[in-house]
Amino acid sequence: MLLLTQTDRTIRAHLADQLADVESRFATELISDLPCVNSLVTHVERYRGKMLRPTLVLVSGLATAEAPGRPSEPHRVLATVVEMVHVATLVHDDVLDEATIRRRGDTVNRLNGNEVAVMLGDYLISHAYHLCSSLGNPTVSRIIADATNTVCEGELLQLDNRDNWNLDERTYFEIIRRKTASLCGTCCKLAVMLNDSPDTVADALYDYGEKLGIAFQIVDDLLDLIGSEDTVGKTLGRDLQKGKLTLPLIHHLTSADAPRREKLHTLLRDHAGSVRGDGDGPDNGRALAIRDLLSTSGSVGYARDRAARLVNLAKAALENLADGPARTLLADVADAVLTRKY
Amino acid sequence: MLLLTQTDRTIRAHLADQLADVESRFATELISDLPCVNSLVTHVERYRGKMLRPTLVLVSGLATAEAPGRPSEPHRVLATVVEMVHVATLVHDDVLDEATIRRRGDTVNRLNGNEVAVMLGDYLISHAYHLCSSLGNPTVSRIIADATNTVCEGELLQLDNRDNWNLDERTYFEIIRRKTASLCGTCCKLAVMLNDSPDTVADALYDYGEKLGIAFQIVDDLLDLIGSEDTVGKTLGRDLQKGKLTLPLIHHLTSADAPRREKLHTLLRDHAGSVRGDGDGPDNGRALAIRDLLSTSGSVGYARDRAARLVNLAKAALENLADGPARTLLADVADAVLTRKY
Repeated sequence: MLLLTQTDRTIRAHLADQLADVESRFATELISDLPCVNSLVTHVERYRGKMLRPTLVLVSGLATAEAPGRPSEPHRVLATVVEMVHVATLVHDDVLDEATIRRRGDTVNRLNGNEVAVMLGDYLISHAYHLCSSLGNPTVSRIIADATNTVCEGELLQLDNRDNWNLDERTYFEIIRRKTASLCGTCCKLAVMLNDSPDTVADALYDYGEKLGIAFQIVDDLLDLIGSEDTVGKTLGRDLQKGKLTLPLIHHLTSADAPRREKLHTLLRDHAGSVRGDGDGPDNGRALAIRDLLSTSGSVGYARDRAARLVNLAKAALENLADGPARTLLADVADAVLTRKY
Repeated sequence: MLLLTQTDRTIRAHLADQLADVESRFATELISDLPCVNSLVTHVERYRGKMLRPTLVLVSGLATAEAPGRPSEPHRVLATVVEMVHVATLVHDDVLDEATIRRRGDTVNRLNGNEVAVMLGDYLISHAYHLCSSLGNPTVSRIIADATNTVCEGELLQLDNRDNWNLDERTYFEIIRRKTASLCGTCCKLAVMLNDSPDTVADALYDYGEKLGIAFQIVDDLLDLIGSEDTVGKTLGRDLQKGKLTLPLIHHLTSADAPRREKLHTLLRDHAGSVRGDGDGPDNGRALAIRDLLSTSGSVGYARDRAARLVNLAKAALENLADGPARTLLADVADAVLTRKY
């Protein structure tokens, strides 16, 4: 789970218990009578890390419940559903990124090939909808499917902009809003809806989740660029290799002086070319040169600042909620998005 | 649509109209505000061919309706859902098979790369569940998701048996029952359930769909082995290249005399090795030698006969239905599975 430092220790312990319950439901839903399927599922269960999305469901549910208590049965099911959707996207993302390491272990595509990874991701997404339909609430199923439609659109828009060295900030934000933030917003909104709270509260919490999700993705992209593989525990530097521009690069390319802009353009083209084997072979030195250029030009700082401002906006959206420990916990979750090192 | 020859021309025309309506709903559901998504969707809309699964929904619905007439709104929605599920699996199958041609055109993975094909398949499956939830019937959503769980299990079981030259008939039938027949059975069963017909009728029509689906896959595998690419309109010979044993090969390896068994073993090993580049390059001659061996040994005939027997069993399951034009049409659909050339 996310490292929460501002939250009361008792509540943290409760949340940890509830997330363990989500893990157990996750495993139960995926059991097959085929041993070959079960061994793959056991492997991806190691992928679970921060559990941001189930945390958003559970805490949003607690923050808007009529009376304090434990999360309701539907909230626990929904928390499991969104984690399953998320893990499915991780498995397919690793195929897209040709990544070899995730959560300090080999990825499914590395171990079993892309074919198995594609089909295992499909198995996870199918089970997510299967579990979701057990809620007996077509509105929830519809909203979850609407969110996954949007996630796929975000991924397709990103793929359409591969090697687009002129990607603008507006399109970058549109990509990450769809591929990451829409599901985070939906987690919060559905948790509120399950409590029959007013639409204004559901909308405010969608806003909280969406802002937090955008910040989360900016930080994710920063870690890919400047994180340490040992700390983050997954293959890094994939965005550059896959021709994906992220916020610090876009900022540098639009705001640095002409020679420094041109320097980055040259580094990016050579790096992408070398990864694809058109040039003189992969060159980790180029990736380090890009990292240094963006750190010294202030573009890394710019991206960090944008993420921090989004976290503040997310916290401001919580003002619609009654004060209490669950609201404090939501604010703490938002802060943790910013300070995380993996 | 399937080539139906036994069916009254008026009914055939009605069915063609209803399938055109499914095509239109299919396109409407998938519209995005992103042009890059719409152009990909337009491409996969060309994949639609026989429309077996929507045909099963529509005709099963008509055959069990209280009064003769046109298919109900829920039947039309469900027919669109199952076609969308099916097209999603085609897009992902083409990634699995590294196929380059489908319905006489380039596959998405060939045109846009595997990454786009993976994500587009996800977009289709997400929209299938989205459309399904619009029925407002959690039981239908649950049964559809249950069927897609089973489809994925079948694909994973098949991948687990890649290059298994000792695959037995029981496991082969288990693979195709899950990956193909479960969805066909579900199409028929759900169509009956939407009419509130008795469970005995729903079970009988599941049985019809499942038997028909197994026969369909046997014929599909035969076309991959001995069909002509010009007639079938997609990349053929992929099963051999991907190390998938199908019914004629399993039959030959268990029933031919020792020298002919050994001849096939040698051809298979060399063919798979050459495809992977371990040997002396791809050799279409080996594929032709395998085809000839299986045709002369009677193993192709054995597989055809198994498919024919399954079609007869499927038609026998229709005896539970009231006699009428829709029942005749279901029998005709079963026959068409056997006689199809593509």
